[in-house]
Amino acid sequence: MELNKVTQDVLNVIDSYGFKQEGAYNLRLNGMAVCHGDSRHIQIVKKADKAGIDIHISGEAKDEQVHIPVVMSKEGIDVVYNDFYIEDGADVTIVAGCGIHGEGCSETRHDGIHTFHVGKNANVKYVENHYAQGNGTGKKVLNPVTKIYVGENSVFTLETSQIKGVDSTERENYIELAENAKLFVTEKLMTHEDQTAVSNMDVYLNGENSSARIVSRSVAKGTSRQVFHPKAIGNNLCHAHIQCDSIIMDEAEISSIPEINARHIDAQIIHEAAIGRINDEQLTKLRTFGLNAEEAEAVIIENFLK
Amino acid sequence: MELNKVTQDVLNVIDSYGFKQEGAYNLRLNGMAVCHGDSRHIQIVKKADKAGIDIHISGEAKDEQVHIPVVMSKEGIDVVYNDFYIEDGADVTIVAGCGIHGEGCSETRHDGIHTFHVGKNANVKYVENHYAQGNGTGKKVLNPVTKIYVGENSVFTLETSQIKGVDSTERENYIELAENAKLFVTEKLMTHEDQTAVSNMDVYLNGENSSARIVSRSVAKGTSRQVFHPKAIGNNLCHAHIQCDSIIMDEAEISSIPEINARHIDAQIIHEAAIGRINDEQLTKLRTFGLNAEEAEAVIIENFLK
Repeated sequence: MELNKVTQDVLNVIDSYGFKQEGAYNLRLNGMAVCHGDSRHIQIVKKADKAGIDIHISGEAKDEQVHIPVVMSKEGIDVVYNDFYIEDGADVTIVAGCGIHGEGCSETRHDGIHTFHVGKNANVKYVENHYAQGNGTGKKVLNPVTKIYVGENSVFTLETSQIKGVDSTERENYIELAENAKLFVTEKLMTHEDQTAVSNMDVYLNGENSSARIVSRSVAKGTSRQVFHPKAIGNNLCHAHIQCDSIIMDEAEISSIPEINARHIDAQIIHEAAIGRINDEQLTKLRTFGLNAEEAEAVIIENFLK
Repeated sequence: MELNKVTQDVLNVIDSYGFKQEGAYNLRLNGMAVCHGDSRHIQIVKKADKAGIDIHISGEAKDEQVHIPVVMSKEGIDVVYNDFYIEDGADVTIVAGCGIHGEGCSETRHDGIHTFHVGKNANVKYVENHYAQGNGTGKKVLNPVTKIYVGENSVFTLETSQIKGVDSTERENYIELAENAKLFVTEKLMTHEDQTAVSNMDVYLNGENSSARIVSRSVAKGTSRQVFHPKAIGNNLCHAHIQCDSIIMDEAEISSIPEINARHIDAQIIHEAAIGRINDEQLTKLRTFGLNAEEAEAVIIENFLK
């Protein structure tokens, strides 16, 4: 189907891999699945009982992609349930994300509740971008819920980023790791004006030799407020490393409340967090190259969030 | 007054500076202030309205000490309120601490609620040791509450340690720092058997150029449970560094939930936490010197908590 300019523009921002109506894909527009395609190894099935889709990924899938972006260009609340069934041995990249284009005066909200059932020996990359634009005064809200069950010997990479424009977000992540399962999380978050962001992430290292590496980077500008609450629970011989770095600007406020909980003698968990202002030396250096204050700041922030 | 052997033994453990009935001191035994002395610059006044004492420390005090240990060798609950008024420019070391000798089958509990009002340009060191012994089946419980208000340009050093034998502890610390005030905290905690320990510490960096350095080290053995919740709130140009390191042994559980909260662009707050098992290499090395497993473990733990 042909997409209008607003939809295409938003898609360009939220799908960094490039959204095409090819292979396995599903585009949800204003609360409706408007187009979808399957591939040989990936089937997308509309749920019968509620809004959302089931995505079945075969163990035959190797280096394949599935794109399931959501665009909201009309006001309203959209709650959707997507379940991923990833078979043993699959190797897949899932590109999700939600973009809001808000021109109205009432709320535009998307709550994506995603559950991943990952088999053994699989390799899954899940990329999720959140973004909002438009001059409407109505709040642009995204409340994603992500539940991930990672099977034995599987690797799950979660890249989540909220680029800009989202007035309010409450992010819930719940992850369970089986034997030898590995989790890599990269979280990037920028808030500005009077935006608020809450990010909760609970990682249960249940299996022997499971491991988690979580890196969270955030920038808070204006009078925005951010709260991070990552939690690593070691129930077995396991390794976890959580690192949260934040830059605070203007009148913003950042709270970082990492929790490490060792319930096993061989659980090894490390956490590091730092909140500070933008690096003045870098700022000065860039300004000697002729950049103005705003440009220099933008370069540093972009680099920090890279 | 003459002290019996049990009291003296407990005092030897909890007062590492050596308790003497000289200078400024107050000994509380089984819920009663049994002896006390003032010094030229330090006056101890019994409270009229409730259990406890007011300790007035003059700005003339230089490199002086005051000892206010508590010993409980009888079952029961003792709640005591001690208030410290420390004048501008005072330089003092306050040695507190509580030791329980429990032989009975009902609870022995001491709740010491200490409040420190520290003036400007003062230097205060507060040393607090908690310890319990005795074969009684009654729970030995210590719930200290410590509130500290540190004035401009003052330095407050808090050394708190729970050595052994305490079945249950809930520690509450609340600290406010004014302009240029500096806080140094060293917390040491060891739990064994089925003991539980909760340690909450809220540090408000309110004044410009205030700083806090918090180091917490703990060892959990047996089936003991520890929860740490240090919190640094930066309300001004300030620096805070929190470091929590824990060794987990046997079937123990440790939870570390540090919270860093920057509410000012020039608040710079760093946190590091690590939970892991005892260092195997060190263990092996010590055993090659002829130490058995238990001895080697004891040496490593002692070093870690030093």
